[in-house]
Amino acid sequence: MERKRIAIVGVGLIGGSLALQLNEKGLASKLIGVDINEEHRKKALELELVDEVMNLDEAIKNSDVIVLAIPVDSVVKILPAILDKIDKQIVIDLGSTKAELISIANKHPKRGRLVATHPMWGTEYSGPQAAVHDAFENKAVIICNANESDEDALEWTKNMYKRIGMHLLEMEAVAHDLHVAYVSHISHITSFALANTVLEKEKEENAIFELASAGFESTVRLAKSNPSMWVPIFMQNRENVLDVLNEHISQLRKFKSCLEKENYEYLQELIENANKIRRIIK
Amino acid sequence: MERKRIAIVGVGLIGGSLALQLNEKGLASKLIGVDINEEHRKKALELELVDEVMNLDEAIKNSDVIVLAIPVDSVVKILPAILDKIDKQIVIDLGSTKAELISIANKHPKRGRLVATHPMWGTEYSGPQAAVHDAFENKAVIICNANESDEDALEWTKNMYKRIGMHLLEMEAVAHDLHVAYVSHISHITSFALANTVLEKEKEENAIFELASAGFESTVRLAKSNPSMWVPIFMQNRENVLDVLNEHISQLRKFKSCLEKENYEYLQELIENANKIRRIIK
Repeated sequence: MERKRIAIVGVGLIGGSLALQLNEKGLASKLIGVDINEEHRKKALELELVDEVMNLDEAIKNSDVIVLAIPVDSVVKILPAILDKIDKQIVIDLGSTKAELISIANKHPKRGRLVATHPMWGTEYSGPQAAVHDAFENKAVIICNANESDEDALEWTKNMYKRIGMHLLEMEAVAHDLHVAYVSHISHITSFALANTVLEKEKEENAIFELASAGFESTVRLAKSNPSMWVPIFMQNRENVLDVLNEHISQLRKFKSCLEKENYEYLQELIENANKIRRIIK
Repeated sequence: MERKRIAIVGVGLIGGSLALQLNEKGLASKLIGVDINEEHRKKALELELVDEVMNLDEAIKNSDVIVLAIPVDSVVKILPAILDKIDKQIVIDLGSTKAELISIANKHPKRGRLVATHPMWGTEYSGPQAAVHDAFENKAVIICNANESDEDALEWTKNMYKRIGMHLLEMEAVAHDLHVAYVSHISHITSFALANTVLEKEKEENAIFELASAGFESTVRLAKSNPSMWVPIFMQNRENVLDVLNEHISQLRKFKSCLEKENYEYLQELIENANKIRRIIK
């Protein structure tokens, strides 16, 4: 696989972790970092995530591949200008929502240079210092509307993801956004809301967190996630997230009703049904 | 610390893991397993969790310490009969709810022999095969209404927990039940409800779980927990759990309202507030 000069736009958790992988797997002849945050640019150099930092225009001129690892509202804002400026470069987007991005890209004559992808990996931390080695390995990456990308761009991107250990799925953008509302976005909302529930109680009960157990930690850890990343995701995927949130509230109401009516047989059934998740997560 | 003959009533996840620790730390001269489930008795012997198995009456006669690691509805049922039969033995309860237990124990002349404890450790798995080495280490254990236990019973129990690496907290039973509703019981309800939300959707969308990410797994893993353990906990802690569940649903409704009204500034605030959980869980 030919080594390329790769610009990473957004050297935070995702961009930084990808830079480490591209370097370790020998996929980059040069790694260029782009970030609007000066601290992040410094930190990315200091941590050797990238070889050098440039502004976006210089990076476009000096790279073969441009990876967009920035919040999804920024992606849709800068994508048209990037497509205007590129020639034969490959542009790879890594965002968590896809329908709006694809509809904007489809209006551009350079649409084919974009490969819209969503690697299903992340942590609740952010910034270059959150970048980790061995990220992405054995996780899924979704390629959206693959047939709208130029063949060379699609092939290189697929090979890159295979080389960093990901397994590929293809999906239409609209289906993607629905699915991730269920298997990712709602988990973040429940975690944020659970944190707020307990923090609210803490105002009266100082000692409450002395007891926090591993179960609590695992359900609430996503509540540490960065709002600059998540507010734009919820904005772009608003309708799907609302549908799932309504369903989730109605599922919680069933538990509430069982307790109110002391209907423990139905409570047992609800829990037995939930146990079927064992089929899915080992 | 004097080695004692210890009977473990309920050789499942908790009882089995404790048996391993008691053995490894040299706290037991003999470990006796008691379980109404024949498979569990066999498995506990096979896995060498205990030295032998007996029925409850024999175990009481042949032990110095009786540990109750069974669902909380069974604890309150058998506790009076156990207290009737013991002489100077120590009875240690490990259940997740305490108010009902204490009120039952307080009616018994042998109340002082009981030490009511709640080690804050567990996993979503159950049965003797779920027992693990190094459980409990560096976790908190709550001793409830410690001043109602006889001094010798309390001292031995505290020392045992220290020896297996736990840090001790003392709390009244009523306060305990309120606190655990927030930092443990609600996490299980949100996980069960999240599993049901996604499983409901799966009926229409087969591919939905191909995308399940690490974030989803951590918020939903508690949904694998055993209903025989959890229904009795929710029964006994019904009022506290209902209060927390109502608060949680109202927190979720705030997210819903932000999305409905496209009020993204308030959404940002809700998430920033949730981020304060970083203070608590690292």
